[in-house]
Amino acid sequence: MKDITRICFVGWGVVGQGLAEILLEQEKELKEKYGFEYKVVAIADKLKGSVYDEKGLDLTKLLKLVKETGKIDTYPGGIKGWDSIQTITESNANLIVEASWTDINTGEPAISHVKSAIGCHKHVVMTNKGPIALAVKELLKMAKKNGVQLRFEGTVLSGTPAINLALKNLAGSKITKFAGIVNGTTNYILTEMEKGLKYQDALKQAQELGYAEADPTADVEGYDALGKVIILANVVLGANLTKNQVLCQGITKITSKDIEDAKQEGKRWKLIAGAELKEDGSIVASVKPLKIPLTHPLASVGGPINALTFTTKYLGDVTIIGPGAGREATGYALLTDILDIHRNLTK
Amino acid sequence: MKDITRICFVGWGVVGQGLAEILLEQEKELKEKYGFEYKVVAIADKLKGSVYDEKGLDLTKLLKLVKETGKIDTYPGGIKGWDSIQTITESNANLIVEASWTDINTGEPAISHVKSAIGCHKHVVMTNKGPIALAVKELLKMAKKNGVQLRFEGTVLSGTPAINLALKNLAGSKITKFAGIVNGTTNYILTEMEKGLKYQDALKQAQELGYAEADPTADVEGYDALGKVIILANVVLGANLTKNQVLCQGITKITSKDIEDAKQEGKRWKLIAGAELKEDGSIVASVKPLKIPLTHPLASVGGPINALTFTTKYLGDVTIIGPGAGREATGYALLTDILDIHRNLTK
Repeated sequence: MKDITRICFVGWGVVGQGLAEILLEQEKELKEKYGFEYKVVAIADKLKGSVYDEKGLDLTKLLKLVKETGKIDTYPGGIKGWDSIQTITESNANLIVEASWTDINTGEPAISHVKSAIGCHKHVVMTNKGPIALAVKELLKMAKKNGVQLRFEGTVLSGTPAINLALKNLAGSKITKFAGIVNGTTNYILTEMEKGLKYQDALKQAQELGYAEADPTADVEGYDALGKVIILANVVLGANLTKNQVLCQGITKITSKDIEDAKQEGKRWKLIAGAELKEDGSIVASVKPLKIPLTHPLASVGGPINALTFTTKYLGDVTIIGPGAGREATGYALLTDILDIHRNLTK
Repeated sequence: MKDITRICFVGWGVVGQGLAEILLEQEKELKEKYGFEYKVVAIADKLKGSVYDEKGLDLTKLLKLVKETGKIDTYPGGIKGWDSIQTITESNANLIVEASWTDINTGEPAISHVKSAIGCHKHVVMTNKGPIALAVKELLKMAKKNGVQLRFEGTVLSGTPAINLALKNLAGSKITKFAGIVNGTTNYILTEMEKGLKYQDALKQAQELGYAEADPTADVEGYDALGKVIILANVVLGANLTKNQVLCQGITKITSKDIEDAKQEGKRWKLIAGAELKEDGSIVASVKPLKIPLTHPLASVGGPINALTFTTKYLGDVTIIGPGAGREATGYALLTDILDIHRNLTK
């Protein structure tokens, strides 16, 4: 990494392509400002095919190809047909961008990808919540043992600083608690309900805008936020929580009357994900709708925007507000981790 | 720094003592969590005296002494009577905490302290706006040449992440603009005026609470914010601004009627410090009161709290909100820089 970072993408969907576009666009600036030079040597995607060239692939050509054909294995040159594990272990990449699909129940195939990469001493960056929510401590331990870095800033607020903010910028501030809005879909629905829409209509609108999926369960029942609260509690507060230990309520029971009542009280409903380190050392986490006073910084966070407030001993409350999803924002999350790994290795 | 960081305080007022208290309180945790070990080997303060012991001073004893007598040169043992430059250059410290007084016009004596420290290859952390607003590029260049780090997170929002956030967490995000509330005193006054107080009464209240000084000029005329906007523009956007190039308007002309009118428009007055990188490459900065829509994250930032919004290409707006002053918050700002230097050197 002191010279040229050799990148391998495992999974090349929206997020991976988002990063690829940023890398291309910023190539010159990253070198000039941060001394960061890269080449992409491999891409392996279950549906789109795989291609490897130890000397580096033409990313512009690949982005055009995938846009036009949905495939990458018609790329001229390079080795074709390797599966993801072979690409991770046998390519000359020294950094793996794990961007395959998310399975929040098993964490697979991402957990296997991460283990393979770490096992052969390659750094890993990812935005996939599954492996991190399920196995972060085991994976971090393995990475430490193998002398590589595993980074996952994008698992909580996409590219908006959250994990790195807590672990680095707020190191030594004694974080005792965090609470925030970590799901943009539900925040958008609540914001629209406040404007007068009924739940079903607000949900429909969110689906039309691409904020909510056809099956919105993971968002509206709070499961997406649950994964994020577990990651933050375990990584930032040092908890060992699994999903059954965290109270999880979504927003499906909030009525237009509830919204109106809150307004009368000078408050606003938000789906709040949070955890607190209690005085006895225990950590209690939850995802639930709460009425927030309009004067609180989290109350003004509307639409698909996310926010997190860390409560610390020396600074009191520190709040960060920014996007929590999107092709560019999540692609950027991977870049911030890559640059931090580069910075750590070249200092 | 790979082993034990040897700290020297130059200036030991509120901020320096604030850091000393945090260091003592967190000693065990800093070692366990971050592998950070320190001893304080020297303190030199123009009024309180100076003391040096290459084996380390008893910080608890010194804090007690300064609280009881206002002096430190009755400390039992150690070398007494060294001035600040001698302490910087001749002590065995490898990290200087520059915490002398601020002179926003000359930057002295802090600039001389920083140059002496860098000149003999010692890292420097500081929260003093003067030297950074006046000479940041020269000092950073000198530090780079001498292989040491100069860090100054606390010059903008005290311990709330601002400079490190922009330079590290948001590296590669293409920041084109920032705008924020970087002066707690004026924000407190504006918040109280909105509650019905007249300017003079709100100012008096701010003075009684210790937010405003007896001579409030630096705050209410915007000069404090001006120093901060110059630091951020020069360090984050790469500008070369001096104070004469930045429009600076304070809040003294805002009347209760202005406040009321803004309310009618669904807006709120804030003293906004900001800078923008224009398409032609020029950078325009200003400090001036602006009416902010209540829906904007900065509008909900009331009282002495500070906030900054960075506008980026890949993330859109990212806003950080937290304290902008205070003994603990500013003491902590020095700790965050010290830990980051330690992290950089031990990775």
